[in-house]
Amino acid sequence: MANSFLDSLTLVRQNTPLVQCLTNSVVMQFTANVLLAAGATPAMVDTPAESAEFAAVANGVLINAGTPSAEQYQGMTKAIEGARKADTPWVLDPVAVGGLSERTKYAEGIVDKQPAAIRGNASEIVALAGLGAGGRGVDATDSVEVALEAAQLLAKRTGGVVAVSGAEDLIVSADRVTWLRSGDPMLQLVIGTGCSLGALTAAYLGATVDSDISAHDAVLAAHAHVGAAGQIAAQKASAPGSFAVAFIDALYDVDAQAVASLVDVREA
Amino acid sequence: MANSFLDSLTLVRQNTPLVQCLTNSVVMQFTANVLLAAGATPAMVDTPAESAEFAAVANGVLINAGTPSAEQYQGMTKAIEGARKADTPWVLDPVAVGGLSERTKYAEGIVDKQPAAIRGNASEIVALAGLGAGGRGVDATDSVEVALEAAQLLAKRTGGVVAVSGAEDLIVSADRVTWLRSGDPMLQLVIGTGCSLGALTAAYLGATVDSDISAHDAVLAAHAHVGAAGQIAAQKASAPGSFAVAFIDALYDVDAQAVASLVDVREA
Amino acid sequence: MANSFLDSLTLVRQNTPLVQCLTNSVVMQFTANVLLAAGATPAMVDTPAESAEFAAVANGVLINAGTPSAEQYQGMTKAIEGARKADTPWVLDPVAVGGLSERTKYAEGIVDKQPAAIRGNASEIVALAGLGAGGRGVDATDSVEVALEAAQLLAKRTGGVVAVSGAEDLIVSADRVTWLRSGDPMLQLVIGTGCSLGALTAAYLGATVDSDISAHDAVLAAHAHVGAAGQIAAQKASAPGSFAVAFIDALYDVDAQAVASLVDVREA
Repeated sequence: MANSFLDSLTLVRQNTPLVQCLTNSVVMQFTANVLLAAGATPAMVDTPAESAEFAAVANGVLINAGTPSAEQYQGMTKAIEGARKADTPWVLDPVAVGGLSERTKYAEGIVDKQPAAIRGNASEIVALAGLGAGGRGVDATDSVEVALEAAQLLAKRTGGVVAVSGAEDLIVSADRVTWLRSGDPMLQLVIGTGCSLGALTAAYLGATVDSDISAHDAVLAAHAHVGAAGQIAAQKASAPGSFAVAFIDALYDVDAQAVASLVDVREA
Repeated sequence: MANSFLDSLTLVRQNTPLVQCLTNSVVMQFTANVLLAAGATPAMVDTPAESAEFAAVANGVLINAGTPSAEQYQGMTKAIEGARKADTPWVLDPVAVGGLSERTKYAEGIVDKQPAAIRGNASEIVALAGLGAGGRGVDATDSVEVALEAAQLLAKRTGGVVAVSGAEDLIVSADRVTWLRSGDPMLQLVIGTGCSLGALTAAYLGATVDSDISAHDAVLAAHAHVGAAGQIAAQKASAPGSFAVAFIDALYDVDAQAVASLVDVREA
Repeated sequence: MANSFLDSLTLVRQNTPLVQCLTNSVVMQFTANVLLAAGATPAMVDTPAESAEFAAVANGVLINAGTPSAEQYQGMTKAIEGARKADTPWVLDPVAVGGLSERTKYAEGIVDKQPAAIRGNASEIVALAGLGAGGRGVDATDSVEVALEAAQLLAKRTGGVVAVSGAEDLIVSADRVTWLRSGDPMLQLVIGTGCSLGALTAAYLGATVDSDISAHDAVLAAHAHVGAAGQIAAQKASAPGSFAVAFIDALYDVDAQAVASLVDVREA
């Protein structure tokens, strides 16, 4: 069965991984609801006084500097330290890296602290790898294909998985490249669908860390889960308000079999 | 009529209490929408420059240190001072107290500043009372029953009402213990249903402060309102996205009679 | 055709203006979703390290000091500088000005930095013009009519457009006064409908800056778009949870012709 990576979906629901999100204020609520619907438990502990302590008990950590206060930057640095000390997998979402100077410098400074996964759009991944100029905020202006080289560079450099979100998603490890066709364009019209995918990636990594599912498969499954939910939502709703509601419902309702029937996975 | 505590629901709608929420960034939007749907008016004034000034005109104040920046802690301290000076009832939600050191210390420092009510899950109430070790973030790992002793300790110590959220809610004053059976498990899958209940508790206290309804009954009614809305939502929706929408609708639509028919109140 | 101002709705969808929002934490998610549904692209870049840099590439900037941290105030000041240097139109939403001292002083300090538009309720506009005492938080306690004098003062002083939200909206420029009847009372029960209208005003100004549509017409069209979407939502939903969903859907679905048929515009 080619879809064994989807066993990780079942593990998320069984293990209810605790995901610590140091993320931007715009998407905190949506991210928490995505995690809850998918079977994980969110906690947005992001202050320097508490973030390292919490990273030691969390099952996964997300770092997303979308609206980074000076204090939250400190919290992120501490959380990464705490995660590494406790062997908690952490995920880097380089939101708007390349487009804005300060966060680009910050992301470049933490990319070598062994994130278990990096998730961004093509522009962000290209910029993070030092290969391009980046986009305007959260838009992807480079195509996903262009990002393949950048993702492979980053995967080798970090030893982790690099995921590039786009019309087709690209999941890259040092020795493996997987294309995922799933999702729906309407996902772009709901704020936080990309950012919460970073959090869900941390959930999948945390839920599978003691299983025989590879990190690559866990990251792939997180993307397939979101993509399939987007497809189900698009069958029920044709405008972004009701689509967002249907998307959360579908994250909760969908099972591994339904995900497998909806998405298209291709190893390169 | 045993349900006279529900007269406070009508008072909330008549008086549209202004509720100042110093709360975490994750649930601000949801909390505001819960207050509006229930009949109250939200205002998230949480900076040290403004929070005391606003607490003097607010009808109720919520303190919830879920994502507490250094500046918000200062704002909380000032808001409590302003509330006490103006006799504005304030509510303490000790979110994740016991599980995280800094906020535990902060909560222990303000618990003696006479909160009109404290609302948390069993782990948080047990930890705040100094009787246990606390949970992992926002989960309740102690049962509500175990929290009874802790709630009674806190009620006596503060002179206020202590509410413990769980499968059954427990409302405790110095001389009264009430069990409330209401709600639906799906409430756990929507972020902010607990945190916004803290805000709604402040609304109920503010709306009834000049009535002959006791603080105990006001807190009980806030919990019954939320629980009944959860039950109505569960009749309409079976996944958390549509459940959240139906929950807000039900908070707005439900009247005291419907609440009374849905919830089960037992004096101990 | 009297509704040529609605050509700007089409321009928003064609140009997908990038709107930088320095706004309060309560409404960030909803504001982003409103912008996306209407056809614009949101980016909540609000730190002093990045806000000026981003204002140079944004098509419009919103300044809304609803929950203003010290750092966000600095970010706002820098964003306004960046916007002015790059000729990016910026919109001031004086939320709760008049009711709270610090933000009132801040707003009075920036009102002369040539906002392209100011959008608030009657109390806020009256207070900003120095003519009244302001309200309790976000409520409008002065009638829209009373605000006419204040709006005209501010329009002359800034050279921009001043919009007063109320039962009827009032759009005022130095030489023009337009009344807009649209919307639905249910809009008041969803947090962020007013704040996101400020952001949408920036989107409309940004999308039309190189067209022959006047700033006055662009601001009017933003208000008409929101008002019409509120009317459509009210036909589909009678409680605020489902109303909010239907409102986002309607922002996305409605076209200029439907807006024209729903709203009532009167030049004074």
